[in-house]
This record gives sequence, structure tokens and C-alpha cells, in this order.
Amino acid sequence: MTLADLRRDDPRPRAGTPAAIEALRARFGARLLTGEDVRRAHGHTTTYISNQMPDAVIHATSEEEVQAVVLACAAHGAPLVAFGVGSSLEGHVNAPEGGISLDLSRMDRLLKVDAEDFDCTVEPGITREALNAQLRDTGLFFPIDPGANASLGGMAATRASGTNAVRYGTMRENVIGLTAVLADGRIVRTARRAKKTAAGYDLTRLLVGSEGTLGIITKLNLRLYGIPEAILSGVCPFPDVESACRTVIQTIQAGIPVARIELLDALAISAAISYSKIDLPHSPCLFVELHGSQAGVAEQAEFFGLIAAENGGGPLAVATKAEERAKLWKARHDFYWASLTLRPGAKAIATDVCVPISKLAVCIADTQADADEAGLIAPIVGHVGDGNFHVTLLIDTDDPAEIDRAEGFIGRLSRRALDLDGTCTGEHGIGQGKRAYLDDELGEAVDVMRQIKAVLDPGNILNPGKIFPNL
Amino acid sequence: MTLADLRRDDPRPRAGTPAAIEALRARFGARLLTGEDVRRAHGHTTTYISNQMPDAVIHATSEEEVQAVVLACAAHGAPLVAFGVGSSLEGHVNAPEGGISLDLSRMDRLLKVDAEDFDCTVEPGITREALNAQLRDTGLFFPIDPGANASLGGMAATRASGTNAVRYGTMRENVIGLTAVLADGRIVRTARRAKKTAAGYDLTRLLVGSEGTLGIITKLNLRLYGIPEAILSGVCPFPDVESACRTVIQTIQAGIPVARIELLDALAISAAISYSKIDLPHSPCLFVELHGSQAGVAEQAEFFGLIAAENGGGPLAVATKAEERAKLWKARHDFYWASLTLRPGAKAIATDVCVPISKLAVCIADTQADADEAGLIAPIVGHVGDGNFHVTLLIDTDDPAEIDRAEGFIGRLSRRALDLDGTCTGEHGIGQGKRAYLDDELGEAVDVMRQIKAVLDPGNILNPGKIFPNL
Repeated sequence: MTLADLRRDDPRPRAGTPAAIEALRARFGARLLTGEDVRRAHGHTTTYISNQMPDAVIHATSEEEVQAVVLACAAHGAPLVAFGVGSSLEGHVNAPEGGISLDLSRMDRLLKVDAEDFDCTVEPGITREALNAQLRDTGLFFPIDPGANASLGGMAATRASGTNAVRYGTMRENVIGLTAVLADGRIVRTARRAKKTAAGYDLTRLLVGSEGTLGIITKLNLRLYGIPEAILSGVCPFPDVESACRTVIQTIQAGIPVARIELLDALAISAAISYSKIDLPHSPCLFVELHGSQAGVAEQAEFFGLIAAENGGGPLAVATKAEERAKLWKARHDFYWASLTLRPGAKAIATDVCVPISKLAVCIADTQADADEAGLIAPIVGHVGDGNFHVTLLIDTDDPAEIDRAEGFIGRLSRRALDLDGTCTGEHGIGQGKRAYLDDELGEAVDVMRQIKAVLDPGNILNPGKIFPNL
Repeated sequence: MTLADLRRDDPRPRAGTPAAIEALRARFGARLLTGEDVRRAHGHTTTYISNQMPDAVIHATSEEEVQAVVLACAAHGAPLVAFGVGSSLEGHVNAPEGGISLDLSRMDRLLKVDAEDFDCTVEPGITREALNAQLRDTGLFFPIDPGANASLGGMAATRASGTNAVRYGTMRENVIGLTAVLADGRIVRTARRAKKTAAGYDLTRLLVGSEGTLGIITKLNLRLYGIPEAILSGVCPFPDVESACRTVIQTIQAGIPVARIELLDALAISAAISYSKIDLPHSPCLFVELHGSQAGVAEQAEFFGLIAAENGGGPLAVATKAEERAKLWKARHDFYWASLTLRPGAKAIATDVCVPISKLAVCIADTQADADEAGLIAPIVGHVGDGNFHVTLLIDTDDPAEIDRAEGFIGRLSRRALDLDGTCTGEHGIGQGKRAYLDDELGEAVDVMRQIKAVLDPGNILNPGKIFPNL
């Protein structure tokens, strides 16, 4: 089996799909969509994993409709793939066995804000930007920011995180409870609205990160946070990645509650300088953001600057005003577009791993050396407070040999992370793209996952071909 | 069925236990203990739930021994109850169906500290005090503090939390990964050492809080935190519980990162004053603790004092020196002993619920009124930043009528929490004591838990009679 085979399954249509489609047509009429464009738009459309389109698409508008679709698919053994905005990077929304793509983007309401409880209840199709726009008047916000303007349902299903997970955690920590339709049509609510509970198995965390293979999320109860009184941003250059990583470790050890701490390596900085026209030295940089009181963030920034200087870094350029901060973070936020300038015409393939933070510098250095050796352009940005980093490969995706080289590189990167007791994916998920590494990462624990999958979805209708090798 | 019936099952010995004991005697010889004293010490010994002793006790000294015991019990269908220090409050270590109590207290090593990664790896029998004593030289600590000097394995199994969960989270957030022996003897490791991961189902969180019913934890990888530069403690009286709760909500809304924020109601304060000889008004008080830099905690304390004053509370009495802080928190830490002075000769029965914080004041007020009506002495202390509070009932446990009244009260308390969209247990767990409320709390989700239990432990050998009504 080649690496390419491991990424995606060959199409394997299911016998029951036509009958399920007929049943759904009876219920949904013209709302059951089978045009090729809409089907292709509901297969995988990011990175190099080939699009595998579903046989039909339905936009659900209510929990009851979700249940009806699940029951029809269950009755006929047809695959069912939940779809949010399609920003997954590892092929999660592909339909290798065909079936129905259940688009939840129209279930996008903010149902309830309980401001005193710092929580809200949303439908799965709401995006994080829409959610925060609607929360603005409450003085609260939902922090998790995976980069893309993803749907909250998709973010929960893939256990997303992003730049400020170092302070606020990931979707794992910020979903209080959820409601899901299981493979047999049962609607279950996993937790009440209390902030903590010791009542029974943690089904919330079981569904978060299950990538649509155990249930279709129809409601989410989310933790919110007060918008901080003061936000301070800073950029600090370092002579090398190692001194930047040492600074991150010492910053956390000192108890400085950084909200974001992002590394851009020299190549990523070069791209940012030329694309965003910012004034920085051509060396690795840490971008930091501090949340707190005016005095608090100023004190923290000073302390951070001292730690950076001790490690040979600096000077720290700070900004507290919104427009200055926006400018400072522009280089980070525009990184995807900036990276494309490193090789005009190429496509960017993003992959991620996460290692214990003490192993981060060596993991990045070995990865840079590997990219050089493989002749790949591979800038690195990282949520380094968590030991999580992304490599963006700039690839001619029309060249199969180059894709093979990229796949080889991604395979070595994943195994390098595992050798350092890390994970093959810190936040992108397994999907189709990382299935080859899951057994190596977790061994017999993957069999336990398979048992849970088998007992909750015996017909394997929910998002087949994802997470598990050979399922 | 009476409430008393719901708390504990009648003894129901399993036919396979004698054969399992014979097999284990062949392996463990004199280390298989069957004396009545040691057996009774390994049944439930706290609160009013009757002791139900196992048929034999084995102190495991290695993962391999744990596996051997599991395999012997599995082969003969004998029950197996994991035991840490026995500080559970809801009957978790009782053996209603007899079988083996597997005592893990001798597996108590701190195996590894990765200071730069802010994590450590421990055996399950280490207690939190022993762990923090051994960590002292590293500048790091493990924050979770459920009151009792519990074992880390037991704390993970019951998803324990405590006074500083408002800042540091619960065991849910602080176990990075764990190793467990499953009911069929498989040894699985649920996660690598990376701080976050998106690789597969979250088996870590499935085992955390599973109360020994899905696996026996043999190793834990735990998050650690830097010991803060400065710690500031304070006590602040309030005219009533409502104004104290409003202060807590506004404190969190203001983004003040309180490490602890504890409520003692007027009755609890009275007990504390007379027992601990502290100088406080006879009214509800908030005990707060702030962790940070010197300037940071001073600023936060000032801000907290202003919020308290706006709600009619104050003055805030603060302390930063270790001995002053110790004195200030003495009343809180000694609360159990203090409460006993409210009714000399009585036993204390502790129960807990957790509600959305906006419902906390009404839940406490209704609970106080209920206790008055039922003629029960029931001081209240709470981890109010999480909406979690404890009621300590002072009961003559030799009087069955009084126990029935206490049980009626606990039942109403649990249902009151559920009516407010809270949970019947914020941190004590379900065990035997709260089984009657789980279905009401989570409905069909409990069936999903049962399916997972059935597929991973088809012989129901791991801690039978816990969590699930009628299992």
C-alpha cells in the first residue's frame, strides 16, 4: 500500500444509498439536491486529498429533520456525512462510500445567551465569527479560533483549537454539553448546563472529536468569557527557533497567562514581510497577546520582554490600541496568503503535529532539515504554547511525484512527533489524511474506539472511512 | 422502592467469586487477604451508606499484578472494585456483589516529572499531598484539591475537583492521558504526552469519571502549574447569600482570575467561629484566594473589594503572608470538624449538587428553607465560582427515621438542581448514592453509557452496582 492509498479510500458505493435517496426524496422533495456542482462542493475541497462527492445533499433546518435523515440512512444502510462549512483540512467531509451529505449551515441560530452563567446555546451551523458578532453586546466572547471561519458544530466534531488555546483551552474544554442524533435516531443530550459534573460517563468529550462518526451534533452549549479590559499585543524576534521555544517555556513557567503565543520561523517571517510589508528582521519571531487589566498586561509584557532578552531575543514591539494590534497580528493572520508568495502558482498543504513543549525546538529543527533535504518549501507557524505547529507545504498539486514527496514528508513528520511522545495531529483531526498513524500513536486504544463505534453505529453509516484505518 | 433501597443494593454474591479467589491465592499466596477487618476497611466507610465488604483484598504492586487480578476475575466472572484511600462519599468502594477489592495504595510512585512540559507521570495510589510534597523542589504543583488527601487514581476515576477548580479546572482538564487495564485484561494508553490532540476518540475523558466501571487506572499523566509568585487570601462578609452570589458572578465577569472563591453560609460561619475562634460577623462569607504576581494579586484584591462593596459586602480582610493565609483559610479547611460542633454526637453526611451560577442563590435559599422545614441541621459551603455547593447534614445515623428524612432531603436537593438545569453531583460522583437521579438528569444518554459499559465489560465485573440504576 502506498502513502497515497492510505490518505483516501477508493470509492466504494453502498448498495442501500439509492433506496435511502428515494425515501428522502419523498420527504424533502426538491430540497434533496443531486446536482454535480453542489455535490462536489460538499466533498473535500481543501488541500491535496481528492474530492469524493456524496450522492445527494440535504440542508437540514431542524433537529427533527436531522433525525429524519439519520433514520432514512439507517433504514437503508446509506452513509451520512455531516457538513458545516467544509474548512476541514484532512478530508473529513469526503464521501468515499457515497451517500448523503447533511449540510447543517442553515441551522445557525444563537438560541440563548446566559450571560450570568458565561454560556450560550447554539445550533451547529453557526460560524465562530457570526457567534461573536451576535455576542458583542453582552460583553462576552467565545475564544476558540481555528483560523477558518468554521462552524461550531464542525469545530466540536474535530476538537478544534487554534491560537488562543494556550489560555482558553480547546473545544474539549469549552463545550459544556451537546445534543446529538445518534446512528439509530436517538436524540441524546450529554450534559446539563452546570459548569462541572461528576454524573456518569463524559459523553460530551466522547462526541467532541468524534468527527461525525458517532452522532450528528444538533445543539451546543458553549462556555463564554468576559471580553478582557485590556489586550496587549507584541512581536519579538529571536536569533533562532530554539531560543524562542526556551522563552515560551520560561514564560509559562513564570505563570504569565499569555492568551496567544505564536511562532513564525524565518521562512514564514520572510513571507510575511514581503506580503504584509511589515518591518521585522528576517529571523524567527514570537507573536504574543496578553489579556487582562491595563496594569496587568503592562506588567506581563515587561516580564515577557525580560525573559526574551535573557534568551537573546528582542526587542519586544508592543501595541495596545486596537488598530495597532490589528496591524501587528496582520502578518500572522495573513500567513496563508503570504506563504503562497513563496512559490507563485503553488497550492498550500497544511499539516499539523503536537509534541511536549520541551521537544518542540528539536522537532521543528529536524522538520526544517527534512524539508530542505526533500527540496520542499515548508514554512512553519506554531501555537507554541501548546507544543503545536503547522507546516505549510507549497506544492504543485498537478505533479504526482511532488505529492508523493509531500506525503513522504508528512509521514516522516507524523512519526517524528510520535517518537517524541507527541501526536500526529494537534488540532486538524484524523479524517482521511492521518489514518495511517493512529494505530502507531495509540495502539490497542484504537481497538477500544472501534468497539465504541461498532456498538453505537453497527451499520457504519456515520462518516465511514474516517479516523479508523480499515473501517 | 424506598429511597434507602435506591442508595445501596442488597448483597448479591456472585457464583464465580470463590473460584477467582482460589486462582488468585495460587498467584498471590498470603497477600490475598480475607480477614474481616481488612475487608470491612475496604468497603464504604464514609457517610451513611452501609458498608458492603468484598470477599478478599489484594494490594497490587505493579501494572502486571493489576492485569493478573483482572484476568482472574474475568475468567470466573468475579466482581473487582478498585480502591485508593477510600475517601469517596457515595459508596464507590462498596462491594454489593462481593468479589475482590484491588487496593492500589502501594502503587504510589511519582514516576517522572517533565518540568519543562509542566507534566508528571504517577502511579494511581499516590495521594495529592504526597505528590505535591515530592514536586516541591521543581517549582511546580498539582492544583486539584478535593479536601480529602485522596489518591490520584481515585480522583481521576471520580472526576474530582474542589476549591480551586474555578481557576485550574477539574480532573477532567488536568489528566493529559492515562493507562488502564480493561475488563478483558488489555492494557491501553489513552493519549501521548502532547498537551492537546485531535487524534481519535477522547478515551482519557471517557475513563476519567468512569468510577472504576470501565478500567483500572495504572498510570496517570498529569498537568502541572508553576507555583505562583504571590498568593493573596481574603475573607469578605455579606448581608445574605444572594449578594455574595452576585459578587461572584460579577467577579468572574470582570475577568478576575480567582484561584478559589468559597461561600460559607451563616450556619457554616457560626460553626467556624465557635470551632476555629476566628473573628468574623455571623453572616455569609466569601473566602477568596488570588494567584499571580505581587502587583497583580493586589490589583485584583482591590477590584474584588470594590465589587463586594457595591453588593453590600465587606470589608475584605486580606492576607499575603503564608501564616496569615493559613489562619484565614483555617476556618474553611476545618469546616468538617467545625460542623460537628453544631450537633455534638452527630455524624456528618456530605452531599453535593452543581447548578448554573445564576441559579445558585435561589438553589441555596430553597435548600436552606427545605432543611428548616425538615428539621435538619444543614450548613452549606460551596465552590461557588463553579455553581457547586455542599450540604453537610448532621445526623444521628443510628436513627432510621432520621436517615429517611436525610434521604428525602437529598432527593429533593438533587431534583431541585435538575429543575435548574444543573447536575445531581458536581464532584462527588454517582457511586451508589446518586443512582436514583441519573436517568432523570441525562435520560437516554444513560442508555448510551450502558452500551459502552456492556461492550467494554460484558461480564459486568468492574465495580458492579455503581453509576447505573438496575445494573
